[in-house]
Amino acid sequence: MKDHPILKAARGEKPDYVPIWIMRQAGRYSAKYREIRAKAGSFMDLCRNPELAAEVTLLPIHEIGVDAAILFSDIFVPVEKMGINIEFVSGKGPVLSPVVKTVDDVETLKVPEPEEDLPYVIETIQLIKKKLTDRPLIGFSGAPFTLASYILEGGSTKDYLAAKTTMWNNPLLWDKLMTRLSEVVTKYLISQIEAGVDLIQIFDSWMGVLSKEEYKTKVFPYTERIVNTIKGKYPEIPIIHFGVNSGHLIEINDKLNVDVIGLDWRTDIPFALSKTDKSIQGNLDPVTLFAEDYIIERKVGKIIEEGIAARGHIFNLGHGILPKTDPSKARFLVDTVHRLGKL
Amino acid sequence: MKDHPILKAARGEKPDYVPIWIMRQAGRYSAKYREIRAKAGSFMDLCRNPELAAEVTLLPIHEIGVDAAILFSDIFVPVEKMGINIEFVSGKGPVLSPVVKTVDDVETLKVPEPEEDLPYVIETIQLIKKKLTDRPLIGFSGAPFTLASYILEGGSTKDYLAAKTTMWNNPLLWDKLMTRLSEVVTKYLISQIEAGVDLIQIFDSWMGVLSKEEYKTKVFPYTERIVNTIKGKYPEIPIIHFGVNSGHLIEINDKLNVDVIGLDWRTDIPFALSKTDKSIQGNLDPVTLFAEDYIIERKVGKIIEEGIAARGHIFNLGHGILPKTDPSKARFLVDTVHRLGKL
Repeated sequence: MKDHPILKAARGEKPDYVPIWIMRQAGRYSAKYREIRAKAGSFMDLCRNPELAAEVTLLPIHEIGVDAAILFSDIFVPVEKMGINIEFVSGKGPVLSPVVKTVDDVETLKVPEPEEDLPYVIETIQLIKKKLTDRPLIGFSGAPFTLASYILEGGSTKDYLAAKTTMWNNPLLWDKLMTRLSEVVTKYLISQIEAGVDLIQIFDSWMGVLSKEEYKTKVFPYTERIVNTIKGKYPEIPIIHFGVNSGHLIEINDKLNVDVIGLDWRTDIPFALSKTDKSIQGNLDPVTLFAEDYIIERKVGKIIEEGIAARGHIFNLGHGILPKTDPSKARFLVDTVHRLGKL
Repeated sequence: MKDHPILKAARGEKPDYVPIWIMRQAGRYSAKYREIRAKAGSFMDLCRNPELAAEVTLLPIHEIGVDAAILFSDIFVPVEKMGINIEFVSGKGPVLSPVVKTVDDVETLKVPEPEEDLPYVIETIQLIKKKLTDRPLIGFSGAPFTLASYILEGGSTKDYLAAKTTMWNNPLLWDKLMTRLSEVVTKYLISQIEAGVDLIQIFDSWMGVLSKEEYKTKVFPYTERIVNTIKGKYPEIPIIHFGVNSGHLIEINDKLNVDVIGLDWRTDIPFALSKTDKSIQGNLDPVTLFAEDYIIERKVGKIIEEGIAARGHIFNLGHGILPKTDPSKARFLVDTVHRLGKL
């Protein structure tokens, strides 16, 4: 396993071909996924059901032929065990309650012990690892800033008003919450590694809404702490760090002790390589899967060519695959990357 | 008028102080605006009412003391005269119908003659210019890509699926629509200049969702054509070009014959200045107006210091002022820029 192309690419060794996985590859674009999702109850119920979560995790291996599976779960899975209720309201997204407003509110938030509080995640990983022997399994967590933005807003937001004003106007509350979340994320990721995942991705999905200063002073130090703790314990487990719209933060994230920087489609690879020597992941625009095949082939060709100059390159979309995507186009993408990506 | 600090900054001459205006400065954060808006009927009715539109345009001059007014209007004002119906549906944003799907659909779209089809815009400008004698009036239009994205989607979109797939899968339709829109925008902006605006801003609000290649080949040439036509006729009228999230496109836009590149808050000024020698506009995060005063002063200080290295600098927010903003904070921002921005 340790010589699998994804792990080699992450470590900056030379694999035989450019490996590919796809963000949200076990998702709504798949009819089989929708079927399993429908019988599971709520979305969070599916995340908490090891048999079904494992089945969903493995779907894209068979359906589209990706080189790795990613644990089917959600960034809110550990958050609900902190004592915050999550509800998915149609047309509105996640609604979190109670909304954290004070330092005292933060004190009430628990740091979940994964073995006791999240046994279904560990069990899901163990089930997947039994069935998936020839490809890596990716574990993941949301990063503190992205989680904090939901916890302070009580849900999704366009302007990140609560998160940004808290970091400016109430630095003590910000530090307490980010510190608490860093503990949660660290324990959660370590439990995934101990259960058997082969590499991890940290989703700081929304970091790109921050300017360099805010990111560097109010967010980066917490992610750095998480990464350093994990690397101190499990130096051999590669870490991928990803957020959309974050090309302006690459030179800061280059200082994180992670192995791979994920890129969205706006950040072209030559630019990224001028800011970091790390391996890269990405970065086809998810909408490209709605284009004619020759357009997909052309853009894959460009990305692979550009990625050759990187320390290592894991192919991926620049953000999650869109629910309306035709699965045959996802399969075509994987086949195209494998056909053009011989190294 | 031609020596006003905003015009000097745009041209790269040295004004006495850093001038400021604010995107959406005549907007919902103002109680007086909400009052006028309520008596006008629909939002589009307000745009079509010269007396009220002029009154709204001038509000922020008195209320917060900005250095320029911007015509109160909407990017859809010329679009409805192309033969597309616009409705603002609460919680959904603009809904456009019919949705353009074929080359034949494009052929039915009219190029409005501003004097005949948009007389209220010209009249609004003339009314404002009578009252506003000591500061410039900014005219504006949406750019073809931003307008095309609404026209092809039939409204707002998160993924720009229709616009992107049209540019890839149906390049003829894309070219016809973008060409038509370029004619519309050119005529519309020229009519504003002839009615008396002192400078113009082209809002290519959503260009930042495109990768460099798409932007360069499928969008830039149309904006270039508009700008070159206007500059051929009115070389003395400065042009500002702005879109959110478009730091990765600055080096392309540097080749536009515009005077000022607008920056959102993610794109730090030193980075922008490494990509363009043009004057810049921006770029305080609009959420900063919810922070404590000393945070606002500090960030204004940084932006002014950084802007000194630019050819010229017009202070602005990095995107529109948020409706929930306390007007006294907007006033404080303007005063702070004037206090710290002596040159």
